Amino acid sequence: MSTSPEAPDRALPRVIVIGGGFAGLAAAKILARERVRLTVLDKRNHHVFQPLLYQVATAGLSPADIAMPIRAVLRNMPDTEVLMARVERVDTGGKLVHLDRGESLPYDYLLIATGARHSYFGKPEWEKVAPGLKNLEEATEIRKRILTAFEEAERATDPARREACLTFVIVGGGPTGIEMAGAIAELARNALAADFNRINPTLARVILVEAGDRLLSAMAPVLSARAKRSLEKLGVTVRLGGRVTDVTPEGVAIGAEFIPARTTIWAAGVEPSPLAKTLGVPLDKSGRVIVEVDLSIPGHPEVFVAGDLAHVVYKGGTVPGMAPGAMQEGRAAARNILLKLGGRPARPFKYVDKGSLATIGRASAVAEVGPIKISGVIAWYMWLVVHIMYLIGFRNRLLVLIQWTWSYVTFQRGTRLITDASAPK
Amino acid sequence: MSTSPEAPDRALPRVIVIGGGFAGLAAAKILARERVRLTVLDKRNHHVFQPLLYQVATAGLSPADIAMPIRAVLRNMPDTEVLMARVERVDTGGKLVHLDRGESLPYDYLLIATGARHSYFGKPEWEKVAPGLKNLEEATEIRKRILTAFEEAERATDPARREACLTFVIVGGGPTGIEMAGAIAELARNALAADFNRINPTLARVILVEAGDRLLSAMAPVLSARAKRSLEKLGVTVRLGGRVTDVTPEGVAIGAEFIPARTTIWAAGVEPSPLAKTLGVPLDKSGRVIVEVDLSIPGHPEVFVAGDLAHVVYKGGTVPGMAPGAMQEGRAAARNILLKLGGRPARPFKYVDKGSLATIGRASAVAEVGPIKISGVIAWYMWLVVHIMYLIGFRNRLLVLIQWTWSYVTFQRGTRLITDASAPK
Repeated sequence: MSTSPEAPDRALPRVIVIGGGFAGLAAAKILARERVRLTVLDKRNHHVFQPLLYQVATAGLSPADIAMPIRAVLRNMPDTEVLMARVERVDTGGKLVHLDRGESLPYDYLLIATGARHSYFGKPEWEKVAPGLKNLEEATEIRKRILTAFEEAERATDPARREACLTFVIVGGGPTGIEMAGAIAELARNALAADFNRINPTLARVILVEAGDRLLSAMAPVLSARAKRSLEKLGVTVRLGGRVTDVTPEGVAIGAEFIPARTTIWAAGVEPSPLAKTLGVPLDKSGRVIVEVDLSIPGHPEVFVAGDLAHVVYKGGTVPGMAPGAMQEGRAAARNILLKLGGRPARPFKYVDKGSLATIGRASAVAEVGPIKISGVIAWYMWLVVHIMYLIGFRNRLLVLIQWTWSYVTFQRGTRLITDASAPK
Repeated sequence: MSTSPEAPDRALPRVIVIGGGFAGLAAAKILARERVRLTVLDKRNHHVFQPLLYQVATAGLSPADIAMPIRAVLRNMPDTEVLMARVERVDTGGKLVHLDRGESLPYDYLLIATGARHSYFGKPEWEKVAPGLKNLEEATEIRKRILTAFEEAERATDPARREACLTFVIVGGGPTGIEMAGAIAELARNALAADFNRINPTLARVILVEAGDRLLSAMAPVLSARAKRSLEKLGVTVRLGGRVTDVTPEGVAIGAEFIPARTTIWAAGVEPSPLAKTLGVPLDKSGRVIVEVDLSIPGHPEVFVAGDLAHVVYKGGTVPGMAPGAMQEGRAAARNILLKLGGRPARPFKYVDKGSLATIGRASAVAEVGPIKISGVIAWYMWLVVHIMYLIGFRNRLLVLIQWTWSYVTFQRGTRLITDASAPK
């Protein structure tokens, strides 16, 4: 790379963080304050608060309300640089990170936190038909598909086509799946109800398909049952034990049964970022890097992995792939890098389970904190407070709070835009 | 079209409005309250408050802050339907509007208000390189290009490339051009200044190219001079009498001179929507429909044209292509339709010039109201009040006010997102 007058202190140890998600950003915020030369790499310019992506996808919030430029989070740090770049591979032997334009950056310590992407169980062709919800582009694409389905239904003259337009299938009964199902059902029943003439949006069918025998399998069975009941109250059809065998633009097959549906949303599974494979270390069955107790990789005490890319053992399983675990791992990896730089031994990572939360539409949620299981409006308030608290930036918090209040009072959703880069000019 | 239980009263006269911009929506709001069967057609699902598009393009506001679903504006009206559809042509003889899927809708009265699109003076190939600012997709595309230019500059190793990345050319010195130039200059000098390490964003060059001999040619010369001075104070280079002869991804040619620039924005001219040509009536030189004094078209007293598509004579010229004129024309056309339906004669349209406003960055604007010419902070407050007042929807007004206050206090811009449907997943 070129030398420029603004270049940071070259005598400092070089630390690279790949990925500006929850794990990477939590690490970068610690490292940026210390005497290291820090480079943060991400192929996007912004951090996204993923737990609220479903709100963008269902026209409740704008993309910018839940995102923040990574370099704005790390501004005014003379020894920290942020580069929008894609990492092609990591050369752990030569201690080099190779970027997409042939450049390579040397490091003394490296943290890889590139997360996960959707997994279609060996059927990549389903992705076009059934997008998932991992980034802002996918969220606005899903928003477009949901809103366009109602517009198409209003125009349709064939009753079968109209019904398919008004059928929404969500595949996967985890937190994202139930949040999407609840939000689409409310959108149809409230915000859209009075806006159409030929169709009745409240007759829209929302079908949540889960292959397992209960929703929210990571939570207690009693909460799974309550979530199911809450969804059914909203008019959602919950299909447990339903294994999706085909997804086409015309609908979804579950074994011999075919559900005609114009809109299918994927919330069924993720796979780790492909960068894991370039490290030359053992991966688990799903492709995650099996890390040491200090989150470094075997044979390379200077390389750390955190977040959804890491297989971190916890209570016979692994740390769940949610924001709190990723942030804890990111911070622990950053502190271990600083310990090693100071010549001290790294500390083993200890996951603190702060509980989990999932919301099911208006004023309803389920929460599990240690032995305590809560559902209904109190869980919903907890969900509200936690999500606003952890959003980055005062502006974002204020805007989200105002828009939620407005939506709560008016039953409306404020960002009902069909936008598309390929739209007619 | 099929008959459905929700179909409106078929005995009512059928009125179709094509276009949900300022003219079409102003007309629809009047017609929806009367005893007519109203259909509003637009290829998009939303109305956009175009005067603030430049704020979306320069990361100050989110798309949803300045837009509103057309069917939400016209909700709860049993005899009004909104269809998201593209109109292919109008058959004034058969009184039919032909849609993009082969359907046709009959009408008794028709208002065409499909507005204008960018004109590249016979060089359509410039559009890809130098997008204009007519809709939300274009605004987010321009935002992406501006922000990506700074990211690219930070990564660039070649000094010439770096300089081209930090050069922004705006073609056209009307209100949109000066608003864009002022906003980009402020973005570079304030919001981005502390966020980069290798580059100094405050060194970005913003060049405003105008072919005429002054900016804001529709306003008084004294205001043109003040606008120029305000822009220069912000660091903008104003090039008057500069005729652009070529636009390429590498930069802009003005005669023999070539300005290397990665980002070029088109604010130079518009041409009427192609629907005008399908009417079989005389058009003016630029392609607008020359309407009668009551805004109907020659030979068809049941067909009206309003907004940027209409050539409406005013003081030796035509009504300027701005929001107030379009809204006045839309309302007048709606009232004339109602008069004719009641068997009474239509009234000639009278344009009321309420003045014009243009803003030049932080706390600076120029305003002309009749003989009064104002510039500086008072004009800026006028601009602020007028723009918030005319925004549709309480939610939008509140969000815009909050974000402007936040930006004003912090010098930040809140929606600095690089998003792209074709971005890597």
